[in-house]
Amino acid sequence: MKKILIISASDSDLEVMQDAAKVVDEFGVDYELTISSAHRSPQRTVELVEKAHNDGVKVIICGAGLAAHLAGVVAAHFPLPVIGIPLKSGGLEGLGGLDALLSTMQMPPGIPVATVGINGTKNAGLLAVQILATSDKNLEEKLIEYKKNLARSVEEKANKLKEQK
Amino acid sequence: MKKILIISASDSDLEVMQDAAKVVDEFGVDYELTISSAHRSPQRTVELVEKAHNDGVKVIICGAGLAAHLAGVVAAHFPLPVIGIPLKSGGLEGLGGLDALLSTMQMPPGIPVATVGINGTKNAGLLAVQILATSDKNLEEKLIEYKKNLARSVEEKANKLKEQK
Amino acid sequence: MKKILIISASDSDLEVMQDAAKVVDEFGVDYELTISSAHRSPQRTVELVEKAHNDGVKVIICGAGLAAHLAGVVAAHFPLPVIGIPLKSGGLEGLGGLDALLSTMQMPPGIPVATVGINGTKNAGLLAVQILATSDKNLEEKLIEYKKNLARSVEEKANKLKEQK
Amino acid sequence: MKKILIISASDSDLEVMQDAAKVVDEFGVDYELTISSAHRSPQRTVELVEKAHNDGVKVIICGAGLAAHLAGVVAAHFPLPVIGIPLKSGGLEGLGGLDALLSTMQMPPGIPVATVGINGTKNAGLLAVQILATSDKNLEEKLIEYKKNLARSVEEKANKLKEQK
Amino acid sequence: MKKILIISASDSDLEVMQDAAKVVDEFGVDYELTISSAHRSPQRTVELVEKAHNDGVKVIICGAGLAAHLAGVVAAHFPLPVIGIPLKSGGLEGLGGLDALLSTMQMPPGIPVATVGINGTKNAGLLAVQILATSDKNLEEKLIEYKKNLARSVEEKANKLKEQK
Amino acid sequence: MKKILIISASDSDLEVMQDAAKVVDEFGVDYELTISSAHRSPQRTVELVEKAHNDGVKVIICGAGLAAHLAGVVAAHFPLPVIGIPLKSGGLEGLGGLDALLSTMQMPPGIPVATVGINGTKNAGLLAVQILATSDKNLEEKLIEYKKNLARSVEEKANKLKEQK
Amino acid sequence: MKKILIISASDSDLEVMQDAAKVVDEFGVDYELTISSAHRSPQRTVELVEKAHNDGVKVIICGAGLAAHLAGVVAAHFPLPVIGIPLKSGGLEGLGGLDALLSTMQMPPGIPVATVGINGTKNAGLLAVQILATSDKNLEEKLIEYKKNLARSVEEKANKLKEQK
Amino acid sequence: MKKILIISASDSDLEVMQDAAKVVDEFGVDYELTISSAHRSPQRTVELVEKAHNDGVKVIICGAGLAAHLAGVVAAHFPLPVIGIPLKSGGLEGLGGLDALLSTMQMPPGIPVATVGINGTKNAGLLAVQILATSDKNLEEKLIEYKKNLARSVEEKANKLKEQK
Repeated sequence: MKKILIISASDSDLEVMQDAAKVVDEFGVDYELTISSAHRSPQRTVELVEKAHNDGVKVIICGAGLAAHLAGVVAAHFPLPVIGIPLKSGGLEGLGGLDALLSTMQMPPGIPVATVGINGTKNAGLLAVQILATSDKNLEEKLIEYKKNLARSVEEKANKLKEQK
Repeated sequence: MKKILIISASDSDLEVMQDAAKVVDEFGVDYELTISSAHRSPQRTVELVEKAHNDGVKVIICGAGLAAHLAGVVAAHFPLPVIGIPLKSGGLEGLGGLDALLSTMQMPPGIPVATVGINGTKNAGLLAVQILATSDKNLEEKLIEYKKNLARSVEEKANKLKEQK
Repeated sequence: MKKILIISASDSDLEVMQDAAKVVDEFGVDYELTISSAHRSPQRTVELVEKAHNDGVKVIICGAGLAAHLAGVVAAHFPLPVIGIPLKSGGLEGLGGLDALLSTMQMPPGIPVATVGINGTKNAGLLAVQILATSDKNLEEKLIEYKKNLARSVEEKANKLKEQK
Repeated sequence: MKKILIISASDSDLEVMQDAAKVVDEFGVDYELTISSAHRSPQRTVELVEKAHNDGVKVIICGAGLAAHLAGVVAAHFPLPVIGIPLKSGGLEGLGGLDALLSTMQMPPGIPVATVGINGTKNAGLLAVQILATSDKNLEEKLIEYKKNLARSVEEKANKLKEQK
Repeated sequence: MKKILIISASDSDLEVMQDAAKVVDEFGVDYELTISSAHRSPQRTVELVEKAHNDGVKVIICGAGLAAHLAGVVAAHFPLPVIGIPLKSGGLEGLGGLDALLSTMQMPPGIPVATVGINGTKNAGLLAVQILATSDKNLEEKLIEYKKNLARSVEEKANKLKEQK
Repeated sequence: MKKILIISASDSDLEVMQDAAKVVDEFGVDYELTISSAHRSPQRTVELVEKAHNDGVKVIICGAGLAAHLAGVVAAHFPLPVIGIPLKSGGLEGLGGLDALLSTMQMPPGIPVATVGINGTKNAGLLAVQILATSDKNLEEKLIEYKKNLARSVEEKANKLKEQK
Repeated sequence: MKKILIISASDSDLEVMQDAAKVVDEFGVDYELTISSAHRSPQRTVELVEKAHNDGVKVIICGAGLAAHLAGVVAAHFPLPVIGIPLKSGGLEGLGGLDALLSTMQMPPGIPVATVGINGTKNAGLLAVQILATSDKNLEEKLIEYKKNLARSVEEKANKLKEQK
Repeated sequence: MKKILIISASDSDLEVMQDAAKVVDEFGVDYELTISSAHRSPQRTVELVEKAHNDGVKVIICGAGLAAHLAGVVAAHFPLPVIGIPLKSGGLEGLGGLDALLSTMQMPPGIPVATVGINGTKNAGLLAVQILATSDKNLEEKLIEYKKNLARSVEEKANKLKEQK
């Protein structure tokens, strides 16, 4: 059973969104990655969310740029956690990601979106895993190990730097 | 037949949104003012838009604050012009209207929202009237007269100032 | 009879502004594209607007960068809808489009400008067509079809993604 | 067993932070609310987090203003979800919450913080409940009911507005 | 002969604009203060500027808020210096003066506006006097004296502070 | 006698600052272009200003980036007009020119700086010429002609565009 | 011998600047508090700095608002540490402290200013004490004690909160 | 004995951080450069700081990007001066350094961080030397010489420019 659904607002964002999928995959969690737009395919978006809920999906990750409404629209229909990734538009029409950031994060009371940093796809994947880990000891162990590896990796780089001198 | 639908995202915004209604009313155009939220009542919002389209509504005006998704969500379902008013939230949770401004205006290609200034309710009403006036000579005449009155009013104030000295 | 006038504030913006013309053209609407500056050719700008009004133009689209005054100046003289496109200046003198955005959108009460997103030329063209469609059933049908195609295109991309896996 | 720990970075933020506690309480979830600062009591903060993890806490909610480091520091030590609330400082030393927002949200890859909107205490509480609901059918039912009530409340307000006319 | 024309974009800005007039007056320079809007009374604005030029006005000071186009529009018609004051709108529709600032200052090449700080009416008056002083030894002497008084006043305050201790 | 002094805060800004010199030169006005920093060569800066004043310089143009203090420091010592150009730093240490813009423009009451747009070197040169033209009929005629040429150039481009179709 | 000089750019900032003096005083360090402006009294400012250097002052704290040049100008003349406090102007002419912040902090290479947060007078005082403590064991002990008290105070507040329940 | 510790939050920032080390080295001051992250290696960071304090380190320089917590976390544990350098992230996830700037500078009362400009590594090194120079006459002399060289270098460039003409 897939527990995480990842929705990219546009196929042009697929490449960056696949980083979220990759993290989820590394933790051995099943996910589905698809494309849907809050504005261009609003009905499909709602149907995706309802189907996901029925299928037992526990977390939905949404990535969108500009006036990024995807996570908010998904959250309006999904009772469980929705993670929003504000994407920096590569073209000339964006405002460095500030537009997507505020459109994703400044949700009104009653409909939260768990927002990560601009283009924070890796953290979105990790946060989804952390959420599942609240009821999965095995995942929690992996996350603790992951944290240790982060620290170890810093230490190794510091040691290498020391030796270079 | 009502040609303009005005949607306030929240009842706390009703007072400021009534300024849009007032302008429309002054031009003798029928409108309906209601409340619906893209996030708290998403289904109602879609139904309102579909009913409006069937009933012959030509322009929808939406006002919302924070991560203001209302105009974008309405525009996803309505083929005719949607006007968005970014509202400055009075409370502590807003960013001076910049959040609502970017969430309303930075729409992706394919789904335009005609955005007016922050709390620009009066201009939203005028823009709706201007849109109807593209096929209504009578309204166009009124708008030309309105413009003349704006100029006349400035002149009167300038004259009064001159006399004071 | 041309119903839409598109004004580019500078010849250096012509290329990006032609995207607005292209959309209008795809909907089979006649338009004229020209160049005029609120600051360098103010008289020409006013004359263009007055001539356009006399010739039956229903919507004017203006694109300008930096302290983008063009749409506001046109709106001061035109009683029907004016659409403003804030353009991101390519050179070193711009502020990422934020300057053009605020100069276009923050109009005082009485003189609305229907603002689209930064470099939102495609949406400006669509909005102009939507405005004309308020009194043209044929155009409205085309817009409904356009919306369906947007949704279909998203679905196709999602299907292609599914098959790749 | 307490599943949610709420940390206020300062006693001056306690009042606004209690709104997060209130939501959690309304869903019948046990929580603990305390005060600790990443800067003024760094050791206490780390000990709180380690004790919370040992005691079975599943989600930690952190609220802080200015250079809001609390959520990030807590996330550095906690393997499960950390929710960050950027608080708008009431005094003269803040930047309207933009400082707290960016300090909370722009976390580096590897250490996510689930950020809600500025002063979004209510949404932080809801998000914590949603996270627990991923493994608690009872809570999920309550959240579905909560969503229905939000929609119902909008509808009632719209009806009241209609009757007033 | 009046050498300085001061234009307030709105009567609601008259009070703050009178500070510019007051400075000019203190230096014994003749001025005229009037009201005209680039958007509500565009024709009057152009006529004012042309008449001013014919009458020998040497500097025009313009104050406007929001999408402050006044100084730019005046500069499009006036070959001598135009000073722009971005005004912070007191109401809810402004962005803390940032909108007026960028609309006034970011002028395209060819049409300069000498911009002073937000609500910098006093400095606008001084700058106008400085411009006239480039060909008026008497005014230059007064400006040198003015500078000395500024320094003297700081020194007096510092001395008073020292004595208080 | 040189009437305009142009100061570049750094030799790395010389190239862009030479555009200001070029405009001044085209109007046949004598100028001097030099380098001095408010921070690295404060004494030299003050001496330059005092010498310029004694030598009959009427306007000083200053260009600086980052925390651009040069124009303000020069204005503290010069009783006649000082024009400030906020320069966008090319390196990684700038904030898109917003830092230089605010550091140049937001001067306290008593010490005006006539600020032009970001990298607005051409407009700075023009403004300096406009200031001298307040007492030089010949220069004023040239500025009127310059304005006509701007309009003519726009018209020619518009005509060329029309013929292309 | 006074080791710390505190300069307020204006007498209207004296009250907030006295918080810096108070902290310094609590650590038993001698200081002098005076007023001087980089723009209104430039000569006095330079003389103050030179005298301070001769008198053995080790750290200068500067507080200024708007285009806050004071710390930068002082740093141009002082070879030892200069601490800058960006002050939020209470009046209508400020930009929430962002102007002062960038004017103080974005110094060019070669002339550092140690910048604290907006209105961060208390931290400026503490930083000055920390700098002196690099060669004063007694002060260092007091700072270690101060840190412990900060932690203790948080703990007491947390305990009080626990008891209230 | 090493008096300055330089910590880079990530090995990807090492290259830019080495500019801080280079300045320190030019003044003949011993330093150590290492890597540690507030988020990925929190324990190592605290241990580094405590060891540094025991070893007699007098100043710690920290460089970090995004939600730059490193300087704040170090300052929470170190009683002597901590210098923070906000680093502009090269990737797509940053906000032009504004995020790092506010996360570093807006520290709460009680825990100062001496912040330099964005990517201001050179100034961070100089500030550290200035701090040590408050008790080291030899270093102070070098700093006075350094200042003179800055002025001399500007003068030479100005002379070269003069000769070119």
